[in-house]
Amino acid sequence: MNRVQAAGVIGAGAMGMGVVRSLLRAGFATHVRDVRREAEQEAAALGATCHASPAALVAACEIAIVLVVDAAQIDDVLFGPDGAAAALPAGGIVMVASTVDPDYVTALAPRIAATGGVLIDAPISGGPRRAADGTMTMMIAGEPAAFARCGPVLAAIAGKVFHVGTRPGDAAKFKIVNNLLAAVNLAAGAEALALAVKAGLDPRQVVAVINASSGGSWMFADRMPRALDGDFAPRAAARILTKDIGIAVDFASRHGMVTPFAEAARTALTATVAAGFGDEDDAAIVKWSLRNAGVSDA
Amino acid sequence: MNRVQAAGVIGAGAMGMGVVRSLLRAGFATHVRDVRREAEQEAAALGATCHASPAALVAACEIAIVLVVDAAQIDDVLFGPDGAAAALPAGGIVMVASTVDPDYVTALAPRIAATGGVLIDAPISGGPRRAADGTMTMMIAGEPAAFARCGPVLAAIAGKVFHVGTRPGDAAKFKIVNNLLAAVNLAAGAEALALAVKAGLDPRQVVAVINASSGGSWMFADRMPRALDGDFAPRAAARILTKDIGIAVDFASRHGMVTPFAEAARTALTATVAAGFGDEDDAAIVKWSLRNAGVSDA
Repeated sequence: MNRVQAAGVIGAGAMGMGVVRSLLRAGFATHVRDVRREAEQEAAALGATCHASPAALVAACEIAIVLVVDAAQIDDVLFGPDGAAAALPAGGIVMVASTVDPDYVTALAPRIAATGGVLIDAPISGGPRRAADGTMTMMIAGEPAAFARCGPVLAAIAGKVFHVGTRPGDAAKFKIVNNLLAAVNLAAGAEALALAVKAGLDPRQVVAVINASSGGSWMFADRMPRALDGDFAPRAAARILTKDIGIAVDFASRHGMVTPFAEAARTALTATVAAGFGDEDDAAIVKWSLRNAGVSDA
Repeated sequence: MNRVQAAGVIGAGAMGMGVVRSLLRAGFATHVRDVRREAEQEAAALGATCHASPAALVAACEIAIVLVVDAAQIDDVLFGPDGAAAALPAGGIVMVASTVDPDYVTALAPRIAATGGVLIDAPISGGPRRAADGTMTMMIAGEPAAFARCGPVLAAIAGKVFHVGTRPGDAAKFKIVNNLLAAVNLAAGAEALALAVKAGLDPRQVVAVINASSGGSWMFADRMPRALDGDFAPRAAARILTKDIGIAVDFASRHGMVTPFAEAARTALTATVAAGFGDEDDAAIVKWSLRNAGVSDA
């Protein structure tokens, strides 16, 4: 089979638009479908070809990357009116990159296979800037032949790719397990920082010490400095991590497991969104934690 | 004032004995007091001078490092029969290195000052091996002149020293804030790993992916590989971190702050100890989490 020349993006939000930029930069004929007219106009201005429906998009390219918000939207763009599934070319690849419940992805694979297509489970870590830079981290689960065909596209959009297995759904599991920890490490970091401030310590000194000590984490090192700078411009909006931790809690519960840390993180993140910080960076959980601890600022 | 030539250790458990080794290696006249005869015999065999009481020890050296288990033992060795406090030489330094409640340390400073001595608040991070290697991390709070006099001793026993302030109690606050996060990141890591195993993922692959992703933490990277190897020889016994997280929860509660992550960590660690793993490495929390999730092993 020839090297893939054309790739499509269904759902050109902040992440999807970044992927569009990376595909164009790598020289792919790049196709876009989004229900929002302004998103399609932005993509067209970058050089992408826009389509009137998901069905029209998949007729024009061998790989369609789905980056809509949730499982309901995935179902709509694939199986709704003018959906992609029925229009897939033989062997056409649907790469689901949204973070959704692993059980949904597992069940989606045979539904796509029934149309003659192939599902690649491909959640992303990294945020809009890394999407646009082509340096996202991606976890991939899918059959080896289809994974191999995705190679050039993945090289264009990702800096690091973990091929975690052949069963669609497994990559989604890795993603939610990782994001469970990211959410807990962040929310617990905010709790610890609030306790430190409550106890009269200098929060910058606390961040420096913890980053060099056994309490350190990737999220703490990444988020706390910008929280202390009062910089809450959304690299990753609080409502996204809130959605992800909800998926983790629901998935765990459905599989008969209690997850007290994930539940505490869902509570703290939901409260952060409820406090009006949903569209700010998820580092805004520090503001909520300080307020909750009765200390007004760090 | 001349350079300190003699230093003492009160409480020669695993950590204290490591400190004794580091002091001897650096050429200090090293004095030891422990209520356990076998500990004193071991220290004497290394070259230390043993004493019949804390009072006798502090009469022989300018700096006494207190490394007993808890605040009750500190109070006993300082203010009990033949305690160190009444026997301190003028300006004699009591360096409290045990992890105890910050409020206890804050209140201890004037009690030591009343005897003519100086309290240095000096909690440790690092475990027995690093104590013996002289590469512990220490957080120090105390007046600058006394801190300066401790310099040669700290150089002998610590690889990294954070002088976090002048008020005794502040270093203890840094320590419990750090250990709160270490405990949460570990316990949540065990929860996440158990969820991954429950979901059918390969735990070694999960550890590799998370260590390279946003869910990573110092504790996860340090403890999970040895848990998967079934290596629970105690570098840091589970009951120690259980004690520390209890101090953090109690301290926070006393200061009017709710700490749901710390409380969840206390629950998980207490259950790990209750399951019989208290004297194993704190990585044994993974065994408890897997059992709790209904998966027998990783």
